[in-house]
Amino acid sequence: MKPMGPIPPGFEANASGQLLIGGRLVSDIVAEAGGTPLFVYDTRIIERQIERFRATMPSEVALHYAVKANPYGELLSWIAQQVDGFDIASFGELGRVAHLGLPISFAGPGKTDQQLETAIRAGVTINLESEGEAERALAIAAHGSRPPRLAVRVNPPFTLKGAGMKMGGLASQFGVDHERAPALIRRLVAAGAEWRGLHIFTGSQSLHAEALIDVQAATVALAAELAAQAGASPPEVNLGGGFGIPYFPGDEPLDLEAVGAALSKVLAERPKILAETRFAIELGRWLVGEAGVYLTRIVDRKESRDETFLVADGGLQHMLAATGNFGQLLRRNYPVAIANKFTSEPSEAITITGCLCTPLDLLAHEVAFPRAEPGDLVAIFCAGAYGLSASPQEFLSQPRARELLV
Amino acid sequence: MKPMGPIPPGFEANASGQLLIGGRLVSDIVAEAGGTPLFVYDTRIIERQIERFRATMPSEVALHYAVKANPYGELLSWIAQQVDGFDIASFGELGRVAHLGLPISFAGPGKTDQQLETAIRAGVTINLESEGEAERALAIAAHGSRPPRLAVRVNPPFTLKGAGMKMGGLASQFGVDHERAPALIRRLVAAGAEWRGLHIFTGSQSLHAEALIDVQAATVALAAELAAQAGASPPEVNLGGGFGIPYFPGDEPLDLEAVGAALSKVLAERPKILAETRFAIELGRWLVGEAGVYLTRIVDRKESRDETFLVADGGLQHMLAATGNFGQLLRRNYPVAIANKFTSEPSEAITITGCLCTPLDLLAHEVAFPRAEPGDLVAIFCAGAYGLSASPQEFLSQPRARELLV
Repeated sequence: MKPMGPIPPGFEANASGQLLIGGRLVSDIVAEAGGTPLFVYDTRIIERQIERFRATMPSEVALHYAVKANPYGELLSWIAQQVDGFDIASFGELGRVAHLGLPISFAGPGKTDQQLETAIRAGVTINLESEGEAERALAIAAHGSRPPRLAVRVNPPFTLKGAGMKMGGLASQFGVDHERAPALIRRLVAAGAEWRGLHIFTGSQSLHAEALIDVQAATVALAAELAAQAGASPPEVNLGGGFGIPYFPGDEPLDLEAVGAALSKVLAERPKILAETRFAIELGRWLVGEAGVYLTRIVDRKESRDETFLVADGGLQHMLAATGNFGQLLRRNYPVAIANKFTSEPSEAITITGCLCTPLDLLAHEVAFPRAEPGDLVAIFCAGAYGLSASPQEFLSQPRARELLV
Repeated sequence: MKPMGPIPPGFEANASGQLLIGGRLVSDIVAEAGGTPLFVYDTRIIERQIERFRATMPSEVALHYAVKANPYGELLSWIAQQVDGFDIASFGELGRVAHLGLPISFAGPGKTDQQLETAIRAGVTINLESEGEAERALAIAAHGSRPPRLAVRVNPPFTLKGAGMKMGGLASQFGVDHERAPALIRRLVAAGAEWRGLHIFTGSQSLHAEALIDVQAATVALAAELAAQAGASPPEVNLGGGFGIPYFPGDEPLDLEAVGAALSKVLAERPKILAETRFAIELGRWLVGEAGVYLTRIVDRKESRDETFLVADGGLQHMLAATGNFGQLLRRNYPVAIANKFTSEPSEAITITGCLCTPLDLLAHEVAFPRAEPGDLVAIFCAGAYGLSASPQEFLSQPRARELLV
C-alpha cells in the first residue's frame, strides 16, 4: 500500500457519499458536461484563495493571474473580475485575454518580431528577456506611433530555495543578468520607451514560507539597487510567484500569513526609490490548482498476479503530471478518490491506470480505495493548474477532455 | 561540453553545408510548409527500414505499423502501401486508418462498450485485455449479425530485458495473465466468436539483439503452449515489437540481421500447432523514428553568466521527449544540428532552449555547435515517432507545429 497526497480542503459529499464540487453532485456535473473525461473547476475555491491573498498580502501588492497555469476561456472570463492583471507567456495567451480589459504583461524567451509588434500595438507591457530582444523591440517600435511599454526581466543572483522549479541564481535563458540590467534600463529610457519596471521571478511551487520570505526581501532589495544604479524609479516591480500547493504525501500547506506579514514589513521599510512603485505577485497554480478536479470513469476492473487494476477512460493524455511524467524525478501519488463513494471506507489496494497502451499511464499506484467497479467515477484532485494544457492531448488519438466551470 | 546522440544515417548536406531531407534543402522545405516549427518525415528512410525488415525477417512474418508512433494522415496513407496491417490503440486511431484497406487489430486497456461495438461492426480484430472486456465484447456481438473477431492479449511470465519500456513479467493492466489465457480462448471459441489468435507484447525500444532473440523464442514457445492447452491453433500470433533506435550518446544500432536469423530458426522449428499460423511484428518507432526531423528557428542569442543560449521558436510543446520529460529518469541530449550549417565545424558550447517560460524546455544542453545566430535553423533528429502527438501541444497556448511528408 502506498500513500497519496492530501485532498485539498473544500470537498465534501452528500448523504449518500457522492462527491460535491461547487456544491453540486459529480453525477449531475458529468451529465451536464456530456460525459467523461472531464475537468471541473470550482470558482468557490479560487475565490477562497483570492480572499486569502487579499486579506494577507500588503495592500500595495497587485494580484496577477499567470495564464499559463490554466487558459480555459470560461475561467479566464471569470477570473478577470477578480484579479488586477494578466501575465502571459505567449502570443496565443494574448489572444485569450486581450478582450478582458485588464493590464497585461508578456514574459518569455523567443518572442518573434511579429509577436513583439503585436504586443507593442496592443499596449502590452513586454518583459524583455535579453538585450537582443530589447533592440528588436525598439527597432519595431520606431516604425510605430506609440512608445513601447517595456520592462526588464532580471536574472537575479539568488534563487527560491527548495522550489519545485528554480529560475534564478544561474546562467539562464530567462531575463538579463542582474549586473547588466541598469545599463539596459538606461538604454530603454534614452531610446524613448515607456519603461515599466522590473520582473524578477525566482522559482515556483514552494511550500516553504521562510524561503519565500527570504527571496521576496532579496527581490525588493535588488529592485531598489538596480533602480538606483539606473537612476530611475520603476513604476512596477513584479515579484514573481512561487506559492505552492500540497500535491504529495507529507506536503504541508504554505503559511501564507507568515509570507504576508514579512512582505508587509519589507515594503513598509523599502528604500525611497521604490516609494511610488506598484508591486505585483503573479500566481497561477496557487490560485487555480486546488480548484480543479479531473473526473474519469472506470471501464474495466481486472486482476493480474494478485494485483487489482481499475482502468479508466482518461489518463496521461489529460493529466500528465499526475502520472509522474512531467518534470518529476520520482512518481508519487496525487490525491485521488472514488468520487461516487467518497465517504466509503477503503477496503483494498488498487492501481488505477488510464486507457493508454503504455505503462507510463498510471493514475494511482497501490492506493487504498473502497471497492469500485466499472461505471464508478475516479476524481483526481489538484488538477486545476498545468493539467489539460500541459498534457499530450492528442497522444494515441484519444478523445479530448471536456472542461466545465462551476 | 556534453555529448549528444548520433545523427541517424541518411542525412547529408549540399555543397554550401545546408542539410538535405529527402534530397531537398531544408530552406525549401520550410518555405513550402509555410514556416517553423515543422516536423518533416522522410519516406526514403522509412522505405530503408521496411526493406531491411523484409530482407532480414522470415517470410512468414507480417509487418504491422503501430499507428500510435506517428498518426500523421499523409504518413498513414503512404505507409499503407508498404506494410501488411495496422495496429491501433484507440478509437481515434481506427478513424485514421479504417479507410486504408489493411487488416487492423485494436489493443489497449479501457475499451468502452461503444468502442467495442464499432470495432466489431468494422470487422477489426480486438485484442482482449481482460476477461471482463471479453464478456462485454461477446454480449455486444450477440446483438449483431457477424461473429466478433477476437484475439487474446497475453501478459507473459517474461519480459524484454533492457527495454526502454517493459510490458510483461509482472502484474499488469495489459493482457490476461498467461495461465488464464487457455480458459479464455476456450470461452471465446465456445461462444461462437472468430478467435483470431494471440498478442504477446513484452516491451519496446530495445537495442539488444540477444534480448530480442530470447524474448521472441520465448513468445513462440508460449504461444504453442497456450494453443495446446486451449486445444486450438491460433490463426495469428502478434509477437509484439521492441526494436529500438539509437537516441543517445553511446547507443549502438540494433543488429537486425541477428534477430532475423534467430527468428527464422525458431519459426522453422516451431511446434506443429503453429504450422499454419501467420506471425506479425508490430513496429512504430523503428519504422518512422529516424525518418523525422523537427525544425525550429533561432529567435534569440543571449549570454548569461558565461554561458551562451540560443532560443528557438519551438520546444517542449512539440518535442517533449527531446527535453527529457517523457518517461526518462535522466535528461540526455538527442542528436541536434544547426541545419543550415550542417557541415561547419563546432566552435562553441551552446545550450538551445525552446520558447516556453519554463526551465524544462531544454532542447540541447552544452553541446558543441558552429556559431549560430537568430534566423538559423535547428534540426532535432529522431523526431519521427512519439514526437508531436506525444507532446503537450497546447502548453502555453503556443502555435501548432506544421508537418510535412517528403
